[in-house]
Amino acid sequence: MRAVCYHAAGKFVYEEIPDRKPGKGEVKIAVAYCGICGSDLHIFQGHMDQRVHAPQVIGHEMSGKIVEVGTSVRDWHQGDKVTVRPLDNCGCCPTCRAGFVHICEKLKFMGIDSPGAMAEYWTVPARLLHRLPAQLPMDLAALIEPLAVACHDIKRAEITSGDVVVVNGGGPIGMLIAMVARQVGGKVIVAEINPHRLTFAEQHGFTVVNPQHQSMAEALAEQGASSGADVFFEVSGSPAGAAAMTNFTRPRGRIVVVAIYPIPAPVDLHKFFWKELQLRGARVYEAEDFERAVALATEGDLPLQDMITARYPLSRTQEAFEFLSTGTNCMKILIGGKD
Amino acid sequence: MRAVCYHAAGKFVYEEIPDRKPGKGEVKIAVAYCGICGSDLHIFQGHMDQRVHAPQVIGHEMSGKIVEVGTSVRDWHQGDKVTVRPLDNCGCCPTCRAGFVHICEKLKFMGIDSPGAMAEYWTVPARLLHRLPAQLPMDLAALIEPLAVACHDIKRAEITSGDVVVVNGGGPIGMLIAMVARQVGGKVIVAEINPHRLTFAEQHGFTVVNPQHQSMAEALAEQGASSGADVFFEVSGSPAGAAAMTNFTRPRGRIVVVAIYPIPAPVDLHKFFWKELQLRGARVYEAEDFERAVALATEGDLPLQDMITARYPLSRTQEAFEFLSTGTNCMKILIGGKD
Repeated sequence: MRAVCYHAAGKFVYEEIPDRKPGKGEVKIAVAYCGICGSDLHIFQGHMDQRVHAPQVIGHEMSGKIVEVGTSVRDWHQGDKVTVRPLDNCGCCPTCRAGFVHICEKLKFMGIDSPGAMAEYWTVPARLLHRLPAQLPMDLAALIEPLAVACHDIKRAEITSGDVVVVNGGGPIGMLIAMVARQVGGKVIVAEINPHRLTFAEQHGFTVVNPQHQSMAEALAEQGASSGADVFFEVSGSPAGAAAMTNFTRPRGRIVVVAIYPIPAPVDLHKFFWKELQLRGARVYEAEDFERAVALATEGDLPLQDMITARYPLSRTQEAFEFLSTGTNCMKILIGGKD
Repeated sequence: MRAVCYHAAGKFVYEEIPDRKPGKGEVKIAVAYCGICGSDLHIFQGHMDQRVHAPQVIGHEMSGKIVEVGTSVRDWHQGDKVTVRPLDNCGCCPTCRAGFVHICEKLKFMGIDSPGAMAEYWTVPARLLHRLPAQLPMDLAALIEPLAVACHDIKRAEITSGDVVVVNGGGPIGMLIAMVARQVGGKVIVAEINPHRLTFAEQHGFTVVNPQHQSMAEALAEQGASSGADVFFEVSGSPAGAAAMTNFTRPRGRIVVVAIYPIPAPVDLHKFFWKELQLRGARVYEAEDFERAVALATEGDLPLQDMITARYPLSRTQEAFEFLSTGTNCMKILIGGKD
């Protein structure tokens, strides 16, 4: 099959590699689209060479159709439209046994720790499939995975209607969180310093704040939240974000850390004590978050189509990553084009 | 009345000051005992001069008997044995209106922000009283306030029977948390570096770890918690504690920050993300925590008597603070002696 393999920092090769027949409990999927995730960009930049074993196919935000079914697979058939929850958990560790399979202590993230979907075909365990409705376009379906991240984050935050919500960081995940938070009744403020992203958020009806030039406290007061936000999503991964999360969350408010912090950041633990704040980490998604994301995408109320900035055929994947590396005026890029 | 007034860093004066008749809704209490809190020690050391207006009576961990009742006071009478929940909240701020009166945005902590109990008499609002059973000795009753802190912390942690619990810091509050955690079925490990406190914890039947010389990971594994503690109480207020709390808590485990961090500490936010940890600040107590503490102290199952290291009469308060300032072999010191 044709595939794109990561060879080294900055270098993908579009080449012919063997495809894999589905084994017991597996299916083989013809990939329609595969989105580029922030972690894929990190791989491209060479930051994850300890996890990725070059040459390797990467990618995990995908949609496709089953073309072949292995033995012992029930309920799935050739032609079924699917997406994949790319979490290969061990099933044995205390965390899996406690039911939190998405944060398995030996989790393999497919497309990073094992081969991914930037190829003609992807062979995966059938237990990780989610069915796509006939009316859901394949390009939008490639956004199910990041949308499931947002659904998981919203669930972790326990947002209720009327909550004032700050989303600190307006990249693709931040915007999806903002959209889902609004969908469940949150009054959302998006904080961002990138002017392109501020414009994008504003065009989609969100209150926006550039904390380098505007007062978050004033923006909160305008929403009737002078004591601080009910919920604060920290999606920036910056020391400024780690400071803002304790400054702008109300007493007993919830902070959800979605961002990846490469090194420990100074955190005002006294404010956690003083305001009895809660902080909850949120990582990937559970099966129900995928189902919720499929339902949300199918209902069509979220402006998901606008999240797709560009599309590149598989053969031009290198170019897509180079564009994403340099451009800040970019939300989601899709690789592929079959439907 | 005779009272001890804080005049300046390192200086209490035992002197005659006017006592105050109870106004509308107030009662006047003859103080039996008043414990010395860590915050009282901070006041003595001059660290809280921006909040304490010298000369001022301080102290808030007390027991006593009502000697006079103001107008509009129902249900309370001369001779009633009481303790005081020393939180004077505004009742008007969004946090009070949400029901979290203990973290009122304009909270006055009585004995710090207003006069306290290191005196013959203390006049306070009747709404802050808690009734003491006849059989509860007055000295133990002076421990109700710090015990209510521990009850609040345990509630915030949502401990269930069988949980493996780390209490990081074995001072008075840490020991009370450890005792209450064990009472509700927790398997408690006390981590401490002070040899006196390690011995105290060990003598009271707790598993102890000195993290400077022993492995916390091994201690957890011995309790069947190789993935980490279910609950981690950070009571040390040290950067080492802020690191330990994310290292030694299991995926989806709860961290409760009880300690006061004077400056922001580096926190491994990546571990919050990776293990979906929760952190909850815990400050003071709610009315129900005081009721729980009264019940626990009255039941007599906790070794509270052992928490009292020394007693000093009111006239020797200065000496008591000097002893506490220099000694590390000390749990709780009580001022007073009437019963």
